[in-house]
Amino acid sequence: MTARMEDMVIIDGLTLCNWDRELLLELHRGGVTCIHACCALWEGARETLSKIGKWYRFIEENADLVMLVRQGADIHTARSQGKVGIILGAQNASPLEDDLSLIEVFSQLGLKIMQLTYNNQNLIGSSCYEENDSGLSRFGKLVIEEMNRVGMLIDLSHVGERTTLDAIAHSGRPVSITHANPNWIYPSKRNKSKEVLQALRDNGGVLGLCIYPHLINGTETTLDEFSEMVARTVEFMGINQVAIGTDLTLKWGDDFLHWMRMGRWTNKMEYGAGSAANPSWPVWPSWFQGPADFPNIAEVLLARGFSRKEVEAVMGGNWLHFFSESFAPDKEVKLCV
Amino acid sequence: MTARMEDMVIIDGLTLCNWDRELLLELHRGGVTCIHACCALWEGARETLSKIGKWYRFIEENADLVMLVRQGADIHTARSQGKVGIILGAQNASPLEDDLSLIEVFSQLGLKIMQLTYNNQNLIGSSCYEENDSGLSRFGKLVIEEMNRVGMLIDLSHVGERTTLDAIAHSGRPVSITHANPNWIYPSKRNKSKEVLQALRDNGGVLGLCIYPHLINGTETTLDEFSEMVARTVEFMGINQVAIGTDLTLKWGDDFLHWMRMGRWTNKMEYGAGSAANPSWPVWPSWFQGPADFPNIAEVLLARGFSRKEVEAVMGGNWLHFFSESFAPDKEVKLCV
Repeated sequence: MTARMEDMVIIDGLTLCNWDRELLLELHRGGVTCIHACCALWEGARETLSKIGKWYRFIEENADLVMLVRQGADIHTARSQGKVGIILGAQNASPLEDDLSLIEVFSQLGLKIMQLTYNNQNLIGSSCYEENDSGLSRFGKLVIEEMNRVGMLIDLSHVGERTTLDAIAHSGRPVSITHANPNWIYPSKRNKSKEVLQALRDNGGVLGLCIYPHLINGTETTLDEFSEMVARTVEFMGINQVAIGTDLTLKWGDDFLHWMRMGRWTNKMEYGAGSAANPSWPVWPSWFQGPADFPNIAEVLLARGFSRKEVEAVMGGNWLHFFSESFAPDKEVKLCV
Repeated sequence: MTARMEDMVIIDGLTLCNWDRELLLELHRGGVTCIHACCALWEGARETLSKIGKWYRFIEENADLVMLVRQGADIHTARSQGKVGIILGAQNASPLEDDLSLIEVFSQLGLKIMQLTYNNQNLIGSSCYEENDSGLSRFGKLVIEEMNRVGMLIDLSHVGERTTLDAIAHSGRPVSITHANPNWIYPSKRNKSKEVLQALRDNGGVLGLCIYPHLINGTETTLDEFSEMVARTVEFMGINQVAIGTDLTLKWGDDFLHWMRMGRWTNKMEYGAGSAANPSWPVWPSWFQGPADFPNIAEVLLARGFSRKEVEAVMGGNWLHFFSESFAPDKEVKLCV
């Protein structure tokens, strides 16, 4: 990490790596303050418990490097102890199954961010890959109210357009899109329309811009092009509502790729944001091979003319503030007001 | 509650009621400080999650009366706010299934007491109703070490003799028998031998004496007879290792009785501590119809000649001290020493 980046808060709004100690050390080399780590894609309640149990164990075995984050204050504690904060999250509401009460249960376990749908329609609403999106379901509305109440952050990254707009309208608290890009810059079903990002902006939510190669212009996308997207998105959303959510997917084999894309819901090959011509894990751009490369992004934003304060906001300050508010139970937030 | 009992800490070491608001109000009338509420008998991990979810909801809907307890300090907080503390527990290790990591998961959810076996042999060891008891299993030893580590209190009330002795020997921390009586006073498979209670005493553990009619001399047992048992047990165990765990089972229908006794493991009628001649829920003694009658026990102990300080120890002081130590993670306890 360059001297200019020291003391900068760097937060990754979504990662999906097969974490090991080597990768945790890389987080330290990159000066990363905190990451949101996905621990469920298609898993039901029981399977998610074991995933969380494994995370607890992994965090304990590496307690010199990392710390579980349940609330904003924990990010500061981790930082002051020289540790990287880990926020657990799910990219699907599948851990809830049909049980509203499990929102508080998983929140108590430290699962503080949940995407309403992954790539398929579920009990709550539709995904960006469904042909039809009938919006938020009856259960979906109650899920949002309960997530609002307990302080579990709503993530809409893979959620379908209409369900997303419904969710933003229904949520009494700001929501997030932890990892997606504007679709008028990089067209993709997974990226977001102006209508959605305008609604997110008006809701007070935060967008994490994504480096997943299929959601930009592939491996060849340059750092300048990425910084151009940051600049244009900041212009649209404002400096306090744009952040980074890399969607980093390191150290997995193809088995996990198939689980990620196909779960148990299909026997046919599915390519997600990839394609038949590009069926395996994407190759990441040369300027972002892993968490140690975070300073490259900060550097290019400074070079582009963003002020140090603006770069700090995008690199982590916005997530820090937003997560701190979002993870508090509703009544605590009300007490703060 | 009589004036003499005011400000006395009263803790019930095990209850299995179908709790409703009316019964919570009765806890207040009885001056009860805290209860251990059983929320799993035969349930697996997934089912236990929903049970805990329902408890969270119930506690929130009655937040003027009760508060979830996760550590000793919470009992004091509840008390200072005029609320009854609720400690969640399981009377079986079934919520763990075969997954060691779920001990920390359930501990994080506030499930702070777990009985190693219910009425049948399980992955850990044998119950008091098994013909043969081969002691603690390989998994059982690891479960004990992990419960020790995270600060989940081991309960041996329904556990078989050999497994109990093995567990006490293997545990690095004091264990509990939350609800059973000396079997030389009231013979029953569920009550405990001198060898077991001596081992518990030497281990620094606490015994909760039980009012469940089948574990004393039935409904007709007098309050004097019960206080006689308290006195004889205190003589054997010492004043700081005897407490009360009523095993109170109010407001359930026969469906739950059958679940309690038969789970899914048999199609034949089972009577547990009851009998074919006495197959339904037991009728409780006139002097203990519910939590409002706790002061009756304190009164009779005072009348028998116990000092106020001794009565306070048995009625709740011993559990308060013991729970506070037992619910802390191992390293915190070590730090305290």
